[in-house]
This record gives sequence, structure tokens and C-alpha cells, in this order.
Amino acid sequence: MSRPTGPSVVPTGEDMAQERPACALEPELVQRLLLTCREAKKSAYCPYSHFRVGAALLTRDGRIFSGCNIENICFPMGVCAERTAIQKAISEGHREFRAIAISSDLQDDFISPCGACRQVMREACKPDTVSRTHFPNSAENVTIKALSSQYARHRHVAGEGKWRGRNGFQHHCHVQGHGR
Amino acid sequence: MSRPTGPSVVPTGEDMAQERPACALEPELVQRLLLTCREAKKSAYCPYSHFRVGAALLTRDGRIFSGCNIENICFPMGVCAERTAIQKAISEGHREFRAIAISSDLQDDFISPCGACRQVMREACKPDTVSRTHFPNSAENVTIKALSSQYARHRHVAGEGKWRGRNGFQHHCHVQGHGR
Amino acid sequence: MSRPTGPSVVPTGEDMAQERPACALEPELVQRLLLTCREAKKSAYCPYSHFRVGAALLTRDGRIFSGCNIENICFPMGVCAERTAIQKAISEGHREFRAIAISSDLQDDFISPCGACRQVMREACKPDTVSRTHFPNSAENVTIKALSSQYARHRHVAGEGKWRGRNGFQHHCHVQGHGR
Amino acid sequence: MSRPTGPSVVPTGEDMAQERPACALEPELVQRLLLTCREAKKSAYCPYSHFRVGAALLTRDGRIFSGCNIENICFPMGVCAERTAIQKAISEGHREFRAIAISSDLQDDFISPCGACRQVMREACKPDTVSRTHFPNSAENVTIKALSSQYARHRHVAGEGKWRGRNGFQHHCHVQGHGR
Repeated sequence: MSRPTGPSVVPTGEDMAQERPACALEPELVQRLLLTCREAKKSAYCPYSHFRVGAALLTRDGRIFSGCNIENICFPMGVCAERTAIQKAISEGHREFRAIAISSDLQDDFISPCGACRQVMREACKPDTVSRTHFPNSAENVTIKALSSQYARHRHVAGEGKWRGRNGFQHHCHVQGHGR
Repeated sequence: MSRPTGPSVVPTGEDMAQERPACALEPELVQRLLLTCREAKKSAYCPYSHFRVGAALLTRDGRIFSGCNIENICFPMGVCAERTAIQKAISEGHREFRAIAISSDLQDDFISPCGACRQVMREACKPDTVSRTHFPNSAENVTIKALSSQYARHRHVAGEGKWRGRNGFQHHCHVQGHGR
Repeated sequence: MSRPTGPSVVPTGEDMAQERPACALEPELVQRLLLTCREAKKSAYCPYSHFRVGAALLTRDGRIFSGCNIENICFPMGVCAERTAIQKAISEGHREFRAIAISSDLQDDFISPCGACRQVMREACKPDTVSRTHFPNSAENVTIKALSSQYARHRHVAGEGKWRGRNGFQHHCHVQGHGR
Repeated sequence: MSRPTGPSVVPTGEDMAQERPACALEPELVQRLLLTCREAKKSAYCPYSHFRVGAALLTRDGRIFSGCNIENICFPMGVCAERTAIQKAISEGHREFRAIAISSDLQDDFISPCGACRQVMREACKPDTVSRTHFPNSAENVTIKALSSQYARHRHVAGEGKWRGRNGFQHHCHVQGHGR
């Protein structure tokens, strides 16, 4: 019943042609990624924000590595779910990736990687890597490139650092709006 | 003789209309910013990369705060020039900014803020903030929004984490190509 | 009336001899440092923790640089007060320091630098640097060396990541107990 | 032939009594940890420092998670081997740990965690956690507490941010000397 919608690309100008592979992810893989990142949230250590995030990273050869956010009483010493997943995969010898899915408890907003995670993705992920943001029963496929402009595009939608939702935390390290 | 070129916007699709204020920075201010960020490089503490970066942040009320990169023997404990400047300004009570200029020793590439600095800029800077990348005798004005898509647009130009130049370091935390 | 107590060293074993200069800071300087770091708290940007921290760094030639914590909606992108002060000083060309004072709103606990700040202090500060923790009307002088063992010594006192106080935040990036 | 020496505690004053469990690690486990962290180095992604680090984290229930350093062209966006291992374990649901072993290519120095990793260990690791530093054919057991004072104790031995060895890199995020 309640399941992720089929992948939908959010193209941005010139992206459309060369980044088309982004939407080439098999639906079954998309489902597995979404399930994995949702499950990964359960391991989140976030006693300060109470904002759980899960990530699932797909390697070129089909393995999936999960990650969660792990906070520290010294806030700057925490780490995001995306980087946890990427570091796990790399430390196990994987260097090529196809996609990453991210999940939070947000009800009405997709979640999107912070700038630090994007910087790490840029060096760790191949150009056709699909970054996939979603909320419980919805999902969309975006390319890293599209994500880059969304980053800014949605700042007005989502508000500048506005916090909503449970525990007063809506956006943790994530600023992207609904994509529409 | 040798001076920054006049500001030229690098528009990206929908950016053009609403972000036009980006190029509204007075030429004199642009010159001051460029001089300041170039001067700021001299304080860089970068014994590990030998890659000096300087930044100059313009507050809404006309003050300029400079910054440089400060490395640490534990690489992740270092900080970029942009964030140094932003932290200085905020710690002195400034919360509204107009522009930031960045400078490196790169001869043939503009320098561009890393993802972490962009994340911090998003929360610290107002929408019309101009992020200005340049190289010794050239410069261009870009909006934060335009910068976001440049981030991805130039990865193919600049190469994936390719290092060139002095000491084997060309790109430090900066990956952007020439803008063209 | 209500003013910081005179400096009292908390020696730790072998530290006592060689680090004695730590307590050699003139009382007037101590007062200035304490006032400055307390004042610096006012610039703190901490909408997520509501835990204000201020720092004051004394250079070898008598200048004082202040710092505050600056948080980000992406917690790991924030910065501590101590590092803000250190980065400011270095970016202004200062490389030699005598002391750093730290202040928070804690009522019954000294505040102590997090591991990341200690790592940065190690590279930025000279051996006789005094790290000074305090609470509103009290203060103590500790050497970097003494601080290192306090780091661990007080974990049982202060509790493992226990949060108390205003807004549910007592310890931010600071874990040290009362020193006794 | 060439194998790690038996565990030897480096006690520091009051540590000795209450932290004795630190040396209670079974020799077989010590061997496994050392082998694992040495093996983990092979996955290190360190194109900028060429300084490989490996870590092996032992959970309370006997599992071992490995980690390596993963650098980024933007130095501050990198991560240390210790935190990689800790994040992996936590993201897999583990919250209680016994020991962590760290390995580098240093020939004549033990390697020791940076301040950031210590901060994370403090919140992630239980008090009796053994932090184990070593070099190819030698090893020593130290408690977190002992490590804290070693941090400072060896700064004079190891030099202030001095870089030696291959590629001009001896100490990466590690400052500790030989323990003697």
C-alpha cells in the first residue's frame, strides 16, 4: 500500500542529457535502498537533536552499506548518516558507488545531504551517482548535480535554518524542501 | 594595470532574475575585498598542504573581516579561510553579510568554497550574498545559487580531486574550474 | 563583590615542576581574560543547544582575542569558542600565546575544552599556555597537561554525556567537573 | 617471529588501581586486534598525506570493527581511522566496547588518537576501554586515562607538529612518542 513512489528525476537545465543515468536505477534496488536507510535510522545516536537520519549507499557491485547520524556532546564532533555509510564502504575496500538514499522522520520534506557530506560525496562518488532523498512514503531520484542547485533552490521554501516538527527539530543537517 | 576584471555574473537558469543583486557590488568594494583576501593569504598556516587560501567577508554595514586556512597535523581538525572569516565576523557581533571573496595561489583556476563552507555560508549569509571567486588578476561574481551548480558543473573540468601545481597541490578544498 | 578567585593551580603529578609557569599569569591579566570570555558569550550563535560559550586568548605580546561558539543546523559544521578565538588570532598574524580562558553559563561546573579544541591548542599554543576554566564567580588555572588528565578524571564526576541545566543542556562540548 | 610484544600497561598515578582492567585483555584478542588494524590500513584513502592509519575496535560481545583514515581534498572533511571504526560499530547497533587498536606505518613511534577521536571515544567507549597504540612489531596497552596524559607528556618527545619519515609525513593526527 504505502510504498515509495517510482523514481522521478528532477532535472536542472543542462543536467538532463548527461546525467540521465541517474534515473536508471532498477526499481528493486530503489526499494532495497529505501528500506535499508529507513532501517538504519534505528541505530542513530542522537540524544541532543532527537533527529534520526539513516543512509544507504549502493556500491557498483551491488552491496549496500548503511549509516546513521552519530552525535557528540561536542556538536562539531558528530557525524552525518551519509558520511557514516560512505566511510564504512570505503573502509571495506569499496571505491565505486551508484547511489545513496537518505531517510529521516520528516513528514513533509525530503531530506538532503549537508554541504560537508556533499563535499565527501564529490570525492567518494562517481558522477552518475544517484542521491536519493525521500520521506516515509515518497521518494525522488536526483543527481548530485541537481541536488547542488536544489540546495539553494529550496532555501526559500524550507526557510533559512528554520526548525519545525518533533522536538523542535525539523531540519538537522538538511535544508531541502519538497522538490516542487 | 593588472586588476580584477569587472564583475561578471555567471547565471544559471532561474537564478538570473532574483539573484541579480549579486552583481550590484560597487567596484570599489570589489577591489577592497580582493585586496583583503589576497593579503589574508599571508597569515595562512598550511605546513601540510602549502596551499594558501585567503578570504574577505563584507558585512552589511561595510566592515571587512579577513580569514585564512589554518591546518592541523590532524587534517580533519583544520579550518578553511572562508569559515575563519565568517567565525571572526560573527564573534564580533556581525550577523548580516553582503559578499565574500576568496583567494589562492592558483594561476589558472578560480577557487571555490568547499561543501562545509557552503553549509556554513547558508546559515550565516543572507540570500543576496555574493560569493566571489578569483585568481590573481581576474575575478568573477557569482551568487551562492550559481556557485551551487558550478560546484557540480566543473567537476569534469577540474578533474576528480586532481592535484596540480606547486608542491603537488593545486586544489585544496576547492574543485571548481574556470567558469567557462 | 562577586569576582573570580585568585588563580589556583591544579597540579597533576610530574606536571608540577616544569609547568609551573602556568600560574605565573598576572592577576590583572587573569581578570581581563575572564571579563573578555564572559563578554564573548554574548555573541554566541547557539540556537540549537542554547548553550553559550565564550573564550579569550592571550597572545605573547599581550593582545586578547575573543571567541564564541557558532552552531550550524548541521551540528558537525559548528565550531567551539576556543577554536574561534584561536583562528581569529592566527588569521591576524599571531602565533604565540600565553593563556586561554573559557566561560559558559554553567553554575556549578568549570567548563573545559573538547578534544578537538585540545588538538588545535596543541599545535597552536606554546607549552606554557595556561588553559583557564571557570564559572561565573570562580576560576582556576590549569596547564594544558593537567587539563589532559582532568579530561578523563572528571568523566565519572560529570557523568557520561549527561545533560543538565537550562534547556536540558548542561555540558555542550565540555565534560569536566569541578576539579575537586 | 616478529610479533607484538605482550601487553604492558603504562600506568599514570591514580590510574593504576581502578583502570587495571585495561590490561586484562586476553593475549589472543590483542593479537587479533593488532592484525585487524594492520590489515585495515590497506583500505586507507590518503592521497594527500600518504600516511595510512588503521584501527580495530573490539565490542563488548567480541566483534571487531575495522577502520581506516579517509581523506578529502578539503582536509577538514577527512576522517580518522578510529572514528571510522567507531562509527561503523555504532551504526551496526553496537554501543559497548572493550578496546581499540591503532596502527600506522611509523617505524619508531607509537601512534595515538587525535583530540577529536578522543572526544568521540569518551562518549562512545566505556571507562575500561583499552586504547592500544603500537608500531609494526611492538605494542602497549594504555587506558583512555593514561592516554590523556600521554597526549601532553609526549609532545616534547615527538616534537611540536614535527613531520618526519616517508613523504615528509611522520605524524598525521598523532603526536605521541614511544611511551618512554
